[in-house]
Amino acid sequence: MHLDRLSLNSMTVPGATLPELVSLCQAHGIGWVAPWRSLLGPLGAARSGQLLADSGLSVSSLCRGGMFTASAAAARASAVDDNLQAVDEAAALGADLLVLVCGPVVDRDVAGSASMVRDGLEAVLPHAQAAGVALGIEPLHPMMAGDRSVVTRVADAADLVERLGNPDGLSVVVDAYHVWWDLHLALDLARIAGRVSALHVSDWVSPLSGGLTSGRGMMGDGCIDLPALAARVADAGWRGPVEVEVLSDWWWARPPDEVLATVVDRFQRCV
Amino acid sequence: MHLDRLSLNSMTVPGATLPELVSLCQAHGIGWVAPWRSLLGPLGAARSGQLLADSGLSVSSLCRGGMFTASAAAARASAVDDNLQAVDEAAALGADLLVLVCGPVVDRDVAGSASMVRDGLEAVLPHAQAAGVALGIEPLHPMMAGDRSVVTRVADAADLVERLGNPDGLSVVVDAYHVWWDLHLALDLARIAGRVSALHVSDWVSPLSGGLTSGRGMMGDGCIDLPALAARVADAGWRGPVEVEVLSDWWWARPPDEVLATVVDRFQRCV
Repeated sequence: MHLDRLSLNSMTVPGATLPELVSLCQAHGIGWVAPWRSLLGPLGAARSGQLLADSGLSVSSLCRGGMFTASAAAARASAVDDNLQAVDEAAALGADLLVLVCGPVVDRDVAGSASMVRDGLEAVLPHAQAAGVALGIEPLHPMMAGDRSVVTRVADAADLVERLGNPDGLSVVVDAYHVWWDLHLALDLARIAGRVSALHVSDWVSPLSGGLTSGRGMMGDGCIDLPALAARVADAGWRGPVEVEVLSDWWWARPPDEVLATVVDRFQRCV
Repeated sequence: MHLDRLSLNSMTVPGATLPELVSLCQAHGIGWVAPWRSLLGPLGAARSGQLLADSGLSVSSLCRGGMFTASAAAARASAVDDNLQAVDEAAALGADLLVLVCGPVVDRDVAGSASMVRDGLEAVLPHAQAAGVALGIEPLHPMMAGDRSVVTRVADAADLVERLGNPDGLSVVVDAYHVWWDLHLALDLARIAGRVSALHVSDWVSPLSGGLTSGRGMMGDGCIDLPALAARVADAGWRGPVEVEVLSDWWWARPPDEVLATVVDRFQRCV
């Protein structure tokens, strides 16, 4: 894929501060960046947004809101408040997308937990629409259903969008690592045509090294047909930036310049 | 669940020989057993079958055939041969079910790999029908798509059954650990009503301890609503033995008698 579509998700080089992330992107010819919220802490959202605007980089998304599921109603309300704040941070940053990790199964109730996600989305959506920030439901790999997301398939995200009445500003984030295995993926992508707001890439290398959350591979090293997946996502209407998000204990231990040089090379040859 | 439905899958106590497995079941009041093929090696299938018949235990299944996917045609043919032999072993053992782990994604081609599984099933099915041994497609958790099974959802198994023309002797094995997270599970179980040939139970404990294949939890320790899942599988027509298959580094390090006492207790209280 052409380099001008590459966006660097900050979790690929989690040791970098926001100014360091900007410098790395500039040094490697990357025009887009996707910071996680923790990166904004030291400067605050407004000054972080100014830094990014001055740098000339574009922001593809802010990661992440969500975590709508909890046994206690007070905890669910608190999650909604946090998401309202995350929307404001995204707006301050010039990001038109807030990525959502929707929250794990609670109370051993998969369907009930999905209903909590729907309620959370419904509570946050008006503020997001007013702020011009799209909410991006990101299905996570089913191995994360127990601790991160009950929304595990593109079909689940499509179901949520339908149940909420296909509102403006509600979109779906497709991460290759999370959804590559799904035999129904092509059909499900067709259901969300026009609603894809991001494509994330990395690779699945068997056996997984590291933990479930930090065992990802670099594009080209694994078993995902990334060009085919990207083509399907393009068919579903997404031709914007593509985030490289390699959560990997192995790569995190390498020098950031080496990581970035590899990212740039593999993005052009393997995506 | 009542103890008379408990079947002990041999991988719960993998250090036991077949005679030891029989003794453990007898000591703990378990009437069913499900051996893996490796257990038959020392005695051979015929003498293993005689041992089990003499013991009074019933055999719920033989694990496992499958592994139909491979880049090379010769390797796929070899897998079919191995499955034909596994059918004979099941018959010799008095098992009316051969459980299939269908094989991982190869050549970065999820759909093509699923086609290889379909071809493999088609090649083995006539012999299985003649031998009176059902083939049981077991969807495995999507985290195992890269190294064990491209068939990851009950829906995928239902698709295979349909594409092969709903033949006699082709069934679906439902393992709670592999499918619990699936928001479409109830709908998919309805598609295979009358074709469920086994229910496997263990639990999902976050975060996973041990590796992807041996990090399972004991029933009651995790986030799976096992009684609800068992009720849905009963609605789909399965009221036969329920295999306890706890692949767990932690439990494998405990004395077998302690493991079995826990299995018997938890099966009655938590399934």
